[in-house]
Amino acid sequence: MNRQVLSRAFSRTAPFRVVTPLIRVPALEKRWKCELYLKCDQLQEIGAFKIRGAANFALQLTDEERRKGLVTHSSGNHAQAVAFLAHQLGVKAFVVMPENSNKMKIANAKKWGAEITLCAPTIEARLATANELAQSTGGNVIPPFDHPWIVAGQATCAMEVFSEMNDVDVLIAPLGGGGLLAGSALAAKHYSNQTMVIGAEPEQAQDGYLGFNSGIREEKVMANTVADGLRTTVGITPFEIIKDEVEDVWLAAEERIVPWMYQMWAETKLIMEPSSVVPFAAMDAQQEKLKGKKVVVIITGGNVDLAHLPAFVS
Amino acid sequence: MNRQVLSRAFSRTAPFRVVTPLIRVPALEKRWKCELYLKCDQLQEIGAFKIRGAANFALQLTDEERRKGLVTHSSGNHAQAVAFLAHQLGVKAFVVMPENSNKMKIANAKKWGAEITLCAPTIEARLATANELAQSTGGNVIPPFDHPWIVAGQATCAMEVFSEMNDVDVLIAPLGGGGLLAGSALAAKHYSNQTMVIGAEPEQAQDGYLGFNSGIREEKVMANTVADGLRTTVGITPFEIIKDEVEDVWLAAEERIVPWMYQMWAETKLIMEPSSVVPFAAMDAQQEKLKGKKVVVIITGGNVDLAHLPAFVS
Repeated sequence: MNRQVLSRAFSRTAPFRVVTPLIRVPALEKRWKCELYLKCDQLQEIGAFKIRGAANFALQLTDEERRKGLVTHSSGNHAQAVAFLAHQLGVKAFVVMPENSNKMKIANAKKWGAEITLCAPTIEARLATANELAQSTGGNVIPPFDHPWIVAGQATCAMEVFSEMNDVDVLIAPLGGGGLLAGSALAAKHYSNQTMVIGAEPEQAQDGYLGFNSGIREEKVMANTVADGLRTTVGITPFEIIKDEVEDVWLAAEERIVPWMYQMWAETKLIMEPSSVVPFAAMDAQQEKLKGKKVVVIITGGNVDLAHLPAFVS
Repeated sequence: MNRQVLSRAFSRTAPFRVVTPLIRVPALEKRWKCELYLKCDQLQEIGAFKIRGAANFALQLTDEERRKGLVTHSSGNHAQAVAFLAHQLGVKAFVVMPENSNKMKIANAKKWGAEITLCAPTIEARLATANELAQSTGGNVIPPFDHPWIVAGQATCAMEVFSEMNDVDVLIAPLGGGGLLAGSALAAKHYSNQTMVIGAEPEQAQDGYLGFNSGIREEKVMANTVADGLRTTVGITPFEIIKDEVEDVWLAAEERIVPWMYQMWAETKLIMEPSSVVPFAAMDAQQEKLKGKKVVVIITGGNVDLAHLPAFVS
């Protein structure tokens, strides 16, 4: 993907995304002896970065295609992104959600007027139901990560970072389906001369780590992590980019994720969901690589179910 | 207090306070049909606005006075403010805390190196212990709210608002000891032509409301509210200012405070402590006065004990 594809994604999506703030956390800078900035993308109106890719995709459909509605399947933040976007564009959203999705996430998608179809909680049932809906409505399916338009949209997050700071040494993003990490790596390639891009993945969903190190995409790794946004397998398009453009993938110990979540809430007063703190849980084992560096961590989302928080652990 | 006193407090405290952001919340703007900004003072390094007044006080002591240490008594955010400030100034902090203070707040004061003395949980024991400490150390007591220097320091919060926006119609601040509300009213008087300043108080700690309406300061009203920062009685100095310069005091229904806290967390991804959401719980009964207006609410703090959160209610 060349620079022009990214720069067009940047202009195209501008009306639908917030340029989120970069904040410093003095207490953590002492811990890692680095200059640390959080790119607070949980401050998007839907509480997550996912609006970036969804907008870049939907805005490249024709008017006629869009008028038939936007279809997607997701148990989480991508569902909200598509629902919000359809609302802003004045079209319908048809969202397939697994029947075991948490009620808050279903309510959030409904809040924007999406029509929700529940299905069995398997990837096969989700795809089949979404395809049926696309056929019956004529609407296009907006994929959650495995498409170049989605990757280019997610790249706008790191592009915002580089437009504010041109001397970032290390940029760290969580790795789930890979859209954000691949987009960040492309943004660094085209808009920064010196930034190493690192992915952070839970040990309990390490398909990205294994694939990155072997060079062959892993499809069957058990995902059993509290970081619900990162349970997906890395997509084909993101994997090809990550393999070539990402510097490294770091693993986070599962038992450190919830403590880091609450520590970040306490230190920053900003809500971060478990997936968003996976980079911090991974950084502790990489102290030497951070020392003296200018580091940016992308905070991907803040959609936690406040009625059912994980037990407090420090 | 004249304009010069405030403007000197503004310059004096600048190195110790963060100019906190004003953020808009689209979902709430629809609810109240107004333009709504949150002044996010929980993003101060200590997680609360209290650093403003404490800094303005401590910086007016002589070097010799300061060298003997800063003494205070508090079960909450003021303790942290004094501990943080002493740490920044390189002097000792002696903080008296009631023995039933929550462990997180004690730990937060200790984090900055304060020497903690526990005492019986009565105001008499707190004052007596703080005075003994002041005598034995020679340090000065930094009062939490009832002093003109504290009021002028807290005024810097609204001064920051007016320096960014000169057309605020309504500014709402929680009312506890009254330092922030009195300071905000003085800031509006000297730095804004059109702003009505409103206090918001829990029904279960309505001494400020009663005093404001009768013109006579109330000293003995039972305070039994989840908004722990607002359980104090309005001080003598703040009361005199509030009586003359504040437009109105609105009451919040106790049972709406916790639901508003969680709603604000969900809508903004920003942690607010119960005291900070009292304005929202009070605003619902005042819809007509807000419609079409430009409204700023000061968010006073985000120091909640994450290990012991109130049960979720929506």
